[in-house]
Amino acid sequence: MNHTLSVALFATIVAAGTGIAQSEKPKEDFKPSELNQPGQQYPQVNSQGYVRFRVEAPQAQSVSASLGLGGQRGGTTLSKDEDGVWMGTTSGPLDEGFHYYRLTIDGGTFNDPGAKNYYGSIRWESGIEIPASDRDFYALKDVPHGRVEQILFPSPSTKTSRRAFVYTPPGYGKDPAKRYPVLYLQHGWGEDETAWTNQGHANLIMDNLIAEGKIRPFIIVMTYGMTNDVRMGGLASFDVKPFQTVLINELIPYVDKNYLTLADQPHRGMAGLSMGAMETKTITMNNIDVFSHIGLFSGGTISANEIQDKDAFKSKVKYVFVTCGSKENPQSLKPASDSLEEMGVKSGYYVSPGTAHEFLTWRRSLYHFAQTAFQD
Amino acid sequence: MNHTLSVALFATIVAAGTGIAQSEKPKEDFKPSELNQPGQQYPQVNSQGYVRFRVEAPQAQSVSASLGLGGQRGGTTLSKDEDGVWMGTTSGPLDEGFHYYRLTIDGGTFNDPGAKNYYGSIRWESGIEIPASDRDFYALKDVPHGRVEQILFPSPSTKTSRRAFVYTPPGYGKDPAKRYPVLYLQHGWGEDETAWTNQGHANLIMDNLIAEGKIRPFIIVMTYGMTNDVRMGGLASFDVKPFQTVLINELIPYVDKNYLTLADQPHRGMAGLSMGAMETKTITMNNIDVFSHIGLFSGGTISANEIQDKDAFKSKVKYVFVTCGSKENPQSLKPASDSLEEMGVKSGYYVSPGTAHEFLTWRRSLYHFAQTAFQD
Repeated sequence: MNHTLSVALFATIVAAGTGIAQSEKPKEDFKPSELNQPGQQYPQVNSQGYVRFRVEAPQAQSVSASLGLGGQRGGTTLSKDEDGVWMGTTSGPLDEGFHYYRLTIDGGTFNDPGAKNYYGSIRWESGIEIPASDRDFYALKDVPHGRVEQILFPSPSTKTSRRAFVYTPPGYGKDPAKRYPVLYLQHGWGEDETAWTNQGHANLIMDNLIAEGKIRPFIIVMTYGMTNDVRMGGLASFDVKPFQTVLINELIPYVDKNYLTLADQPHRGMAGLSMGAMETKTITMNNIDVFSHIGLFSGGTISANEIQDKDAFKSKVKYVFVTCGSKENPQSLKPASDSLEEMGVKSGYYVSPGTAHEFLTWRRSLYHFAQTAFQD
Repeated sequence: MNHTLSVALFATIVAAGTGIAQSEKPKEDFKPSELNQPGQQYPQVNSQGYVRFRVEAPQAQSVSASLGLGGQRGGTTLSKDEDGVWMGTTSGPLDEGFHYYRLTIDGGTFNDPGAKNYYGSIRWESGIEIPASDRDFYALKDVPHGRVEQILFPSPSTKTSRRAFVYTPPGYGKDPAKRYPVLYLQHGWGEDETAWTNQGHANLIMDNLIAEGKIRPFIIVMTYGMTNDVRMGGLASFDVKPFQTVLINELIPYVDKNYLTLADQPHRGMAGLSMGAMETKTITMNNIDVFSHIGLFSGGTISANEIQDKDAFKSKVKYVFVTCGSKENPQSLKPASDSLEEMGVKSGYYVSPGTAHEFLTWRRSLYHFAQTAFQD
């Protein structure tokens, strides 16, 4: 397995969009986005998924809003009203779920002061949420809650203390004899270790699944995948090795020493979204003695014909799960998954209905992965 | 003790400034601020503490930067160069330490896309750091690190799960028989439960003090003080009671049940900065059966003549520590502290040299409080 990830695959991914469809006049039932800063009335979302922006900048010459990763999807041009306030509504409804966006004001890029910020595109972006029909599975509910613990672990290879977040299930630690499987869960390009809890609600997804008795509780570890020295287009130069060293030689031993883990290959998994999925594929296939569970969310597949030592893979890898949104390239998932099953490796796949290369796809991917992984 | 905090005191506090002094021409040794977003070259800081801003907005008519809480301290007007880039330098050096700031672009308020954001003034503000001469005490070092754990605790009184962050010292939990004192530590007006770790580096201050053997390790709990429904000027309407209920009836029992605390009054303290200090004063004086250690950072004092039942106070309260910056009203600290000592209550005070009502004052306040609290 070489360390260079596929440029073609990444190009496919960044082209996948936010999915603004053309539509009729929006219904006038707009409400403040649930991701607004406290007390802020704008941006607003209506029941169809249209977004309305409002920006105060009375002397500005032009204001627009761009949606999607890096703002690469089309602008909504705002118009100035008599009070000097800029208003604008998307030309159609957006897909359900979370979207990054940014404002362009007089030719400069800024965030919307009304919205909270989320790290994506190697910067803190504005975020907006179109309430999803199935949002209950990642809602904050009155159930026992696990913790999200920030650790700073020593990293001799990068000569610093590095940050990771560790999700521990409700009740963790009450019984020191109870130990848990561990999933190492990676963000995508432009994001960092804050993404899976901030944008992804990974902790709430787990809390809710555990409260419903739907899964075997496990620990999730999230750290920075060192993806962001690679700017758009320069992915061919990405070398997974420095991150692999941090993960395998530094983070995993630290977690196994400091948490109540089942510290062995059969109970250790890795999953990731987008570029994090590519990292997952490369690192797990390089290290089947370390990981038994593999999850690739919107970042490729593993097919039987890619596996050189099939006997080793079959004896070590217990589960491979591949997912993407229905607006990505879902047709690739089943053949790959089937080829593994035929080979004798347990595999599954999931297609998120009505979503593209965005976080609702990945919230759902984690939700389904968690219910099918670590079964023994 | 009534629940209304002092309006006059708050007015004093918001008037305290960032302290831009007039000076000569700045030295041309500007470097990117350490709080910049990854890869961003601006804003920059020079060795004297001047700040230089750079904003791209080629069609804008006017761009300025305002420093301090709510941007209430004077603007630095930026000028457009031939390339359409706006540049500007503060008229003098800023105080050492952390400052909030914001941009005004064509009459609208935005954050600087170059800088990271910090929650203050009921919004995420831009932040800049002037390296302090004593910055070593809150630096990220190669020492054992504690954790900062996000918990979601049930709050029947507010009908939701509320967030808190819990700092646990290095090695916490290794010996289930080892238990720790607990400090409940509050942010100021406009801020929230993220402030003490993001702006304050409370976790790093503790890690470093513990590594040097300078303190008895303790747990710190940080939650939202419910201060922000009160807008500037409307503080007379602030009622501490809802927060007191959350803290005393909900958070403390949850922490004592779920952490290895010394779950008794002699090992429980409360401290806060600015409006959080006022909350601390009110809540601790209402609840001397709950708290024995009190820290007021830039938010008033406790004097013997304010204490109605002196015998009860003497028998319960083990330590009162008051602090502020030398540019605030430091003359009030010693008389108050002395009056407690004369009464027979252990007390101390600290004045942060060269700082105003800002976070370097409070980092130093915590540093000194931690070394003198929980001594038995």
